[in-house]
Amino acid sequence: MVILGFDPGLATLGYGAVKSERGKTELLDYGVVLTPKNENLAVRLAMLEEGINKVIETFRPEEIAVEELFFAKNVTTGINVAHARGVLLLTAIKKCGRLYEYTPLQIKQALTGYGRADKNQIQQMVKTFLRLKAVPKPDDAADALAVALTHAQTSKMGGLFSI
Amino acid sequence: MVILGFDPGLATLGYGAVKSERGKTELLDYGVVLTPKNENLAVRLAMLEEGINKVIETFRPEEIAVEELFFAKNVTTGINVAHARGVLLLTAIKKCGRLYEYTPLQIKQALTGYGRADKNQIQQMVKTFLRLKAVPKPDDAADALAVALTHAQTSKMGGLFSI
Repeated sequence: MVILGFDPGLATLGYGAVKSERGKTELLDYGVVLTPKNENLAVRLAMLEEGINKVIETFRPEEIAVEELFFAKNVTTGINVAHARGVLLLTAIKKCGRLYEYTPLQIKQALTGYGRADKNQIQQMVKTFLRLKAVPKPDDAADALAVALTHAQTSKMGGLFSI
Repeated sequence: MVILGFDPGLATLGYGAVKSERGKTELLDYGVVLTPKNENLAVRLAMLEEGINKVIETFRPEEIAVEELFFAKNVTTGINVAHARGVLLLTAIKKCGRLYEYTPLQIKQALTGYGRADKNQIQQMVKTFLRLKAVPKPDDAADALAVALTHAQTSKMGGLFSI
């Protein structure tokens, strides 16, 4: 089964595609969709939609996993991420009905067994699980792989958290 | 010129359509797009997209005006509104390239000349400007008409605030 994970963002939206078969999960690809800061919001959202559609058409995932939004200290950034996340959820559900959301806590627990794991520990687990030589860059892509792996782990245990 | 105003929201998204010709603005229609609270977020966003598309196809506006988001005291509501607003901006720009944003302060100043006007004063001005017998209900529809009227007033003065 192909699982596509997304880490929502307006300037940088991360994606990570993995293939999960009989308990083994391997990397397909990862990357980011970028939008220019000097462009207006609606145009940037349309660019995100186009980029997300391309990613979904490329990997044709059976299931999509998206990180839940927890409010950043910076409210303006938080609003921007939520605008982008609205477009992401809309685009994803139109292309793939099987859409799942995971909180940062669920991701930490699924990958490290520890709810207070830091960003670095999560990234190291992404590297280990996928048998990579280095941590994927940028962070947004590593975060997207983390949510894809969380979904692979969670579905394996039979406990799907459907949105 | 037909102007469509939108007041973004996840449970209730307001719209108001006006026709503005040679300095005179008249009401075409107003209403709301509703989504059920017990449905999941992505499905609700898809319902909003469908509703917004129907409204735009019905009124075929030359220009669309959307209220800017200022953060509510309730952060969860704010995140929900921002998700919905992302879908609104995306849908609007795909259907109508002339999209404008107004802050609550700009709306208050355009309609009452006073930046600290309250909700009731704004609604009374909507009623007066459009020569209605009563304030439009619900509030979301009245707010959408207020942003449409703000755009009509602002464009008349030659000062378009393009997003």
